Amino acid sequence: MHGSEEGVMERVESDRRSLLGAVGGMLGLVALGELGSSGLAEGQVAGTGPGADAMSRVPWPYRPLDADGVGHAAFVANGQGGCMFGVVEPIVGGVARQLGAPYTSLPLALFMYGSAGVVGWGSLCGALNGAAAALALLSARPQPLISELYSWYEREALPDFMPKGARFPNVASVAGSVLCHASLTRWCNASGKKVASPERAERCGALAASVARKTVQLLNAQSAGNPAAGAPEPATAACLSCHGTRGTECDASGRMRCASCHAPAELKAAGHPAT
Amino acid sequence: MHGSEEGVMERVESDRRSLLGAVGGMLGLVALGELGSSGLAEGQVAGTGPGADAMSRVPWPYRPLDADGVGHAAFVANGQGGCMFGVVEPIVGGVARQLGAPYTSLPLALFMYGSAGVVGWGSLCGALNGAAAALALLSARPQPLISELYSWYEREALPDFMPKGARFPNVASVAGSVLCHASLTRWCNASGKKVASPERAERCGALAASVARKTVQLLNAQSAGNPAAGAPEPATAACLSCHGTRGTECDASGRMRCASCHAPAELKAAGHPAT
Repeated sequence: MHGSEEGVMERVESDRRSLLGAVGGMLGLVALGELGSSGLAEGQVAGTGPGADAMSRVPWPYRPLDADGVGHAAFVANGQGGCMFGVVEPIVGGVARQLGAPYTSLPLALFMYGSAGVVGWGSLCGALNGAAAALALLSARPQPLISELYSWYEREALPDFMPKGARFPNVASVAGSVLCHASLTRWCNASGKKVASPERAERCGALAASVARKTVQLLNAQSAGNPAAGAPEPATAACLSCHGTRGTECDASGRMRCASCHAPAELKAAGHPAT
Repeated sequence: MHGSEEGVMERVESDRRSLLGAVGGMLGLVALGELGSSGLAEGQVAGTGPGADAMSRVPWPYRPLDADGVGHAAFVANGQGGCMFGVVEPIVGGVARQLGAPYTSLPLALFMYGSAGVVGWGSLCGALNGAAAALALLSARPQPLISELYSWYEREALPDFMPKGARFPNVASVAGSVLCHASLTRWCNASGKKVASPERAERCGALAASVARKTVQLLNAQSAGNPAAGAPEPATAACLSCHGTRGTECDASGRMRCASCHAPAELKAAGHPAT
């Protein structure tokens, strides 16, 4: 875990121990890259031999990608398999094509499940779900990159990248949340467009492109020795100072923006101090 | 898409077209199982030859698993790599071990990213994220199974399965949400335990076990010709009748329980009709 995240990450310590305990698995399993500081050499594997087993190791050897090129490709892939696939395919597939067989055997079509917050459920934004999967596969230290990306998604006006082939003028909005449903509805409010409109469909393609591009920028920077901090948002940190794993309440775990769901009226009704 | 879900699934039609457009991909990609009715033979592949390419096809050939056995194994795997990995490993790994190479080369460690709602962010429950990934890989029609599982998770008192090795008496709670943060906090409220307690850590292991077991039951039933309907929850359907893609507002997309975040006071303040 990245040092600067310790105060707010609010990961339950037993979960961290769980990650640390994952060394030596069932399928030639190696520990996620976070474990690089715990004595595991990068790429160390419990399996045997080269060849097909090489792809069972995480992280895969990363090859820097062109961020804008991945953004354009993500827009196309989003149109083929939805937003999670749209982010995973150009990044993971892009590296796999550079590495060649057996890496090209990864069944990327499985990542179509994350579309629209998992088969339309509106939960975690599929672009973010896919980015986390890609980072987990390709980074030796994915956690700060994922946190940096998620905070960026919450606070920035997005899409911030218009891919080739886009037909409509870009309308950017601040999601204030990592959840698909909130992200979509806030864009509808900003644009005046319906959620079933072609403009909204294109926006999600451009959003997948923006997320894929940012993900590659983070990967490239980390690969070049300039890792992201993944710093927490102060407002969330303030809530977690009481409710998080180190607070007196100790009844909440997370990093999502609290105010996205917990409205001021709710907090006031619960006798909560003003924030 | 399963017929009975059409009315509420509220998937934006262009997203569905996106899925249908995914035939013929970049990595020997085949369409997700949902496309079986659109002219694709199951297992049809755009790649070439047998061997390693076989694993790039989705769905993989499913081999029924012992649901209780998977539940026990999920508890162990949760302790090794967190809740998403905890569900994926015994199911996907279990099938991979039956199928042999090259299937055993899938880098399952990547799924450790989903722990605690993605590296501790508290978004989508990692057990549910992992179950959706496993279903997408192993089912010819994952969508109704994922929806059935997610609705079950929202409404049931869980954990409903106590794995071998559990140390504490089970306290079950209704999450009312597919989100990690809400699920954790409601369990803390029901149990009186802290989110950082060993009881809470064990509860998440037992929850991963419960989700993995249910996932296998759904897969086995579908494999035997008894598919789940994935029927929507009436209260959510009522909200979506106005706000969903077919409603007059058309400003929301999703299947998550609305009341989990949208409190009655908020709805009243917005001049919303009583529900």
